Amino acid sequence: SQKRLRVLVDMDQVLCDFEGSFLVKYREKYPEEPFIPLEERNTFYIADQYAKLEPDMQDKARDIWNAEGFFLNLPEIKGGCQALTEMSQMEDVDVFICTSPLTFYKYCLQEKFKWVEDHLGPDWISRLVITKDKTMVHGDVLIDDKPRIRGVRDPPSWKQVLFTAPYNQKVDLRGRQRLNTWTDDCWRDIIEDFKKRI
Amino acid sequence: SQKRLRVLVDMDQVLCDFEGSFLVKYREKYPEEPFIPLEERNTFYIADQYAKLEPDMQDKARDIWNAEGFFLNLPEIKGGCQALTEMSQMEDVDVFICTSPLTFYKYCLQEKFKWVEDHLGPDWISRLVITKDKTMVHGDVLIDDKPRIRGVRDPPSWKQVLFTAPYNQKVDLRGRQRLNTWTDDCWRDIIEDFKKRI
Ligand SMILES: [Mg+2]
Ligand SMILES: [Mg+2]
Repeated sequence: SQKRLRVLVDMDQVLCDFEGSFLVKYREKYPEEPFIPLEERNTFYIADQYAKLEPDMQDKARDIWNAEGFFLNLPEIKGGCQALTEMSQMEDVDVFICTSPLTFYKYCLQEKFKWVEDHLGPDWISRLVITKDKTMVHGDVLIDDKPRIRGVRDPPSWKQVLFTAPYNQKVDLRGRQRLNTWTDDCWRDIIEDFKKRI
Repeated sequence: SQKRLRVLVDMDQVLCDFEGSFLVKYREKYPEEPFIPLEERNTFYIADQYAKLEPDMQDKARDIWNAEGFFLNLPEIKGGCQALTEMSQMEDVDVFICTSPLTFYKYCLQEKFKWVEDHLGPDWISRLVITKDKTMVHGDVLIDDKPRIRGVRDPPSWKQVLFTAPYNQKVDLRGRQRLNTWTDDCWRDIIEDFKKRI
C-alpha cells in the first residue's frame, strides 16, 4: 500500500479574497467612515482591528461579511484554484479543502459549498470539510493564513504552511514554511518536498 | 499529557430521526402511493429502495428530504442528545458531531447547524464537522448507522460502533460493536471500554 500525501487547503484568504472583497464592500457601504488599508491590517480577525477605530465599527464591519452573497461572490486569490486543480492531479496526492464557518452561519455554509462548486467543479464538494477545529482533520499539510491554529488535538497530524497575508507577515514561524503566492511554482516544490518526507 | 478519547457521532439516524420523519412526510404528500414501512427498509439510501417500487418514486422520495425545513424539523432519536451531553461531560472524553451533507446542500447545511444549536446548544457548533469523507476526521470511535464507511484513508483512525437501524440489522459486523439505543447505559459502557483501550 503506497503512502499518499494528504494536503488540506484553507479557503478564506488562501483561495478566496476575503480581505480585498471586504474592503471594497465596506467602503461602498460606509464611504464616510474610516477604513484600514490592506497593507495596514495587523490582526487575523478584521473585527478586532476595526473595533479599535471606533466602538461601532466592529458591527459595521461584521455586517459586510454576514450579508447574503458575501462569500458566494468572493473573487479568487490569484492562481489558487488552478494550483489546486494541478495539485490534485499530482501523483499520490489527495487534496481537501478545510474551512471554518462564520459564527453567523446562515449564508456562509451553502455559499462556501457553492463557491467551491462554481470555481473548482462539483466533484470538489466531496473534498470539502467544514469544521471550527482543524486539528480534528487528518492530513500531512495544512496551507492556511491563520497565525495560530489550535484545537483539541495538540500536536495535530498536519504541519502548517503559512499562506502569507498582511497580518501574518511578522509572526514567528516556529519552524513553519511560508507560501507567498499561488502564481509561481513554489507550492509545487513544497508539496514535492513533503512527499519525500512522509 | 493525558490521552483523551475522541468520539465522533453521526447525525442522521443516530441523533436525528431521518427515516421516521421521511415516512410521515412522504405519506402526507403522496397518500395514494406505495410506501416502505420502517421495518422493511433494507438499503442504507432510501432512494435505492424506493426506486425499486416504481421508476419515479425515487424522485418523489428525494423531494421530501430536499425540501426546506426537512432537516431543521427532524425529531431526536430518543435519548441521543441527552446521552451526548452526558458523554461530553465524562472525564477525558471529547465529543464531536460528524455528518455528511446531502448532494442537494442548499438547506441541509444551515439546518444541520441550526438543529445542533437548537437541540444541544450553541457551544456544540464548534463541535460539528461536515464532510463527505469521514475517514479524514480524527477520532477513536465513530458512532454511525452506515454499514460501510469508506474514504481516502484506509483504515481510518477510528473504530466504528454501528448504531442499529432497520437496514443494518443483518450486516456483517466485521468485529464492530453495535449500539441499539441511547435510552439505556450501553453507550456509557462502550465509551468506558474504549477509554481503557487507548
Ligand atoms: Mg483563512
Ligand atoms: Mg447516519
